[in-house]
Amino acid sequence: MLKGEVIAVGTELLLGQIANTNAQYISQKMAELGVPIYYHVTVGDNGERLKEVIKQAQTRSNLIILTGGLGPTQDDLTKESAAELLNLRIVLDEPSFAKIISFFEQRKTTMTENNKKQAMVIEGSEIFPNDHGLAPGIAVQKEGIHYIFLPGPPSEMRPMVDRYFVPWIKKQYQGHIFYSKVMRFMGIGESALEERIVDLIEKQENPTIAPLAKDGEVTIRLTAHASTENEALSIIEPVENEIHHRLKNHHYANGEEGIEEVVFHLLDRLQLTLSAAESCTGGLLGRQLTRISGSSKVYKGGVICYNNEIKHHILHVPIEILDSKGAVSMETAEILANENRKLFNTDLSVSITGIAGPDPVENKPVGLVYIGISEKGKNTVVKEIHLSGSRTFIQLRAAKYAYYYLWERLKERLT
Amino acid sequence: MLKGEVIAVGTELLLGQIANTNAQYISQKMAELGVPIYYHVTVGDNGERLKEVIKQAQTRSNLIILTGGLGPTQDDLTKESAAELLNLRIVLDEPSFAKIISFFEQRKTTMTENNKKQAMVIEGSEIFPNDHGLAPGIAVQKEGIHYIFLPGPPSEMRPMVDRYFVPWIKKQYQGHIFYSKVMRFMGIGESALEERIVDLIEKQENPTIAPLAKDGEVTIRLTAHASTENEALSIIEPVENEIHHRLKNHHYANGEEGIEEVVFHLLDRLQLTLSAAESCTGGLLGRQLTRISGSSKVYKGGVICYNNEIKHHILHVPIEILDSKGAVSMETAEILANENRKLFNTDLSVSITGIAGPDPVENKPVGLVYIGISEKGKNTVVKEIHLSGSRTFIQLRAAKYAYYYLWERLKERLT
Repeated sequence: MLKGEVIAVGTELLLGQIANTNAQYISQKMAELGVPIYYHVTVGDNGERLKEVIKQAQTRSNLIILTGGLGPTQDDLTKESAAELLNLRIVLDEPSFAKIISFFEQRKTTMTENNKKQAMVIEGSEIFPNDHGLAPGIAVQKEGIHYIFLPGPPSEMRPMVDRYFVPWIKKQYQGHIFYSKVMRFMGIGESALEERIVDLIEKQENPTIAPLAKDGEVTIRLTAHASTENEALSIIEPVENEIHHRLKNHHYANGEEGIEEVVFHLLDRLQLTLSAAESCTGGLLGRQLTRISGSSKVYKGGVICYNNEIKHHILHVPIEILDSKGAVSMETAEILANENRKLFNTDLSVSITGIAGPDPVENKPVGLVYIGISEKGKNTVVKEIHLSGSRTFIQLRAAKYAYYYLWERLKERLT
Repeated sequence: MLKGEVIAVGTELLLGQIANTNAQYISQKMAELGVPIYYHVTVGDNGERLKEVIKQAQTRSNLIILTGGLGPTQDDLTKESAAELLNLRIVLDEPSFAKIISFFEQRKTTMTENNKKQAMVIEGSEIFPNDHGLAPGIAVQKEGIHYIFLPGPPSEMRPMVDRYFVPWIKKQYQGHIFYSKVMRFMGIGESALEERIVDLIEKQENPTIAPLAKDGEVTIRLTAHASTENEALSIIEPVENEIHHRLKNHHYANGEEGIEEVVFHLLDRLQLTLSAAESCTGGLLGRQLTRISGSSKVYKGGVICYNNEIKHHILHVPIEILDSKGAVSMETAEILANENRKLFNTDLSVSITGIAGPDPVENKPVGLVYIGISEKGKNTVVKEIHLSGSRTFIQLRAAKYAYYYLWERLKERLT
């Protein structure tokens, strides 16, 4: 059995300039594969301290995953220090070196001698190509311990983990794998969700069933223990189907896909366009949609109607409504959604108006939010929700609920 | 001299469910105070492994900062394990207990026996009150080593660090402190900035001068070594003034304040209102401004004109301009800023149109962005910038540059 430990190398981590998201990412992937990680250690760009930390890891772990310190400068000494400690030679990896040469040729800049350092690897190692940078990853084994070297920049490390390191782990586990699948739910709390599947949780064995509340939604991780991925999938399937059956009004996706992506794909497949009138979220919904490449196919834009004057002038909410019912009201949400849809000439429009805090407005409590959905030829629906937490959290959850109500409305149409 | 090490306790960290932002926060604060941190270690909720990790820390650090595992459940065993290892007793802290009792009384819920556990502390320790939760922090010294226990939830840990732990550190350093100050710059790259102050960097001693590029801006950390905070400030001041003098067109703030906050405060003090026409940033600028509580005083809203039809219909960019010059052009940026300002009736309006990628548009390269600023009674100015990186990074930097150009325009008016 593998017992893992993640060692992050970099003085910037010890100065608090960046968070150690690499350890988190690697740990997540290992958890999915059923590889236990018992320690994270961070050490600076210091060869002696790094060697001490590796020595100690050798006493308790047989999968030592190092990230950072594979770059071209003097500071980058992870593989050099490890090779010295393991008494292994550093050799040139020709394919990596060829890639570096062509990188500099293409950019018509001169390669300096220290760039060659990035193509140096430990003798007898397996190479993980770096598809987003110059320093390859390395897997080397000595005396029953696996040493994995990964680059520090997350943009290089993450794809390398996904494409090369995860398959490497699976190869080690041939005939004995853990496989896990994450189901995502919205519009239901963790305890309410648990109650609906408590019998399944109580008799869980293989797969295990682990609910988790996070960022305004709930996930369930199903982890199966099997000899092949197909076998694992067939162990997971009946449990997954049962959970889906009980919670189908909340189960919006699996894996990494967020609710905004699910809504984007639904709109895209249904060939519908969307616009948004955002008051308390101030552009957050638009920002989340436009992070997705290709979002222009479905999202035409929106009005950020942060100010009441704008709600009136641009989106035609009558002054009487603003005065009598308020900007945060069922009525205003309805008009905002309808008028915004007309203005942007879209099939659908969503409106969000609420009180993000920290102070109450219009004698209404912080966290009160109205979400309206207007659709051509249908009745406009407005939902009232009550959120808690900080200003930012209320804004994030309000946008998330807007997506959730859009999903609720659209999901049936594809079947 | 203190030599620090941060030990985070929590299985959720080893499963990758959360990133270890506590270690980052504590390290940042220690860096500002000049306390070196040489190691971060993370271990799960396991008493034996925790004790091993503390034992090892004792061999190399004299300031051992533990976070997490101070809660009421069986899993929470940080102080119990440490007390056992240090051979110290666990005793009840009456003020903390009184606070827990009154917490439950106020909520009219029953306190269970395990809540009392949170009021238990190590004998002979100094208490850091928890202003945002129930478990107090603890500082205890034995055989020349300081042990600090902090709660795991960042919402409790951060204010405790700021209010109680940082002053505790300063007390240890009486007559011998490090004090640091961060200057923030935009619109200049790290190497160009270094070149302008290379003479200062070369002769640096006290204070030290450390530039760092991060998230599309550059910071300089000045760290002075002195016997009092006032002395440190007076050591920093002439260097800070000199750097400011050389880079005053780029030096927009000090400390934690981001460019959007600086712009918000400038607009607020000048009593000016702002609106935005956002194309490639899709609402990001609005979202950043509206995270700030009170932003409604200056920000009235904006149009997210993601689609060309919207640029034409709502913001009146002529079809001929869109056809001949394109949506990403000097001309379109200018019209967007002007028309948006009129529509929202604000003093200023900023427009952002560009190509966030991944694919080129209108035969123009990814990363090309135009930012227009329209102001009542002034000529509209459009800036062309070329950004690189991922889609998200281009969007983030485009918004940041919009704030930078607003700052450039407004900063003179207060003097």
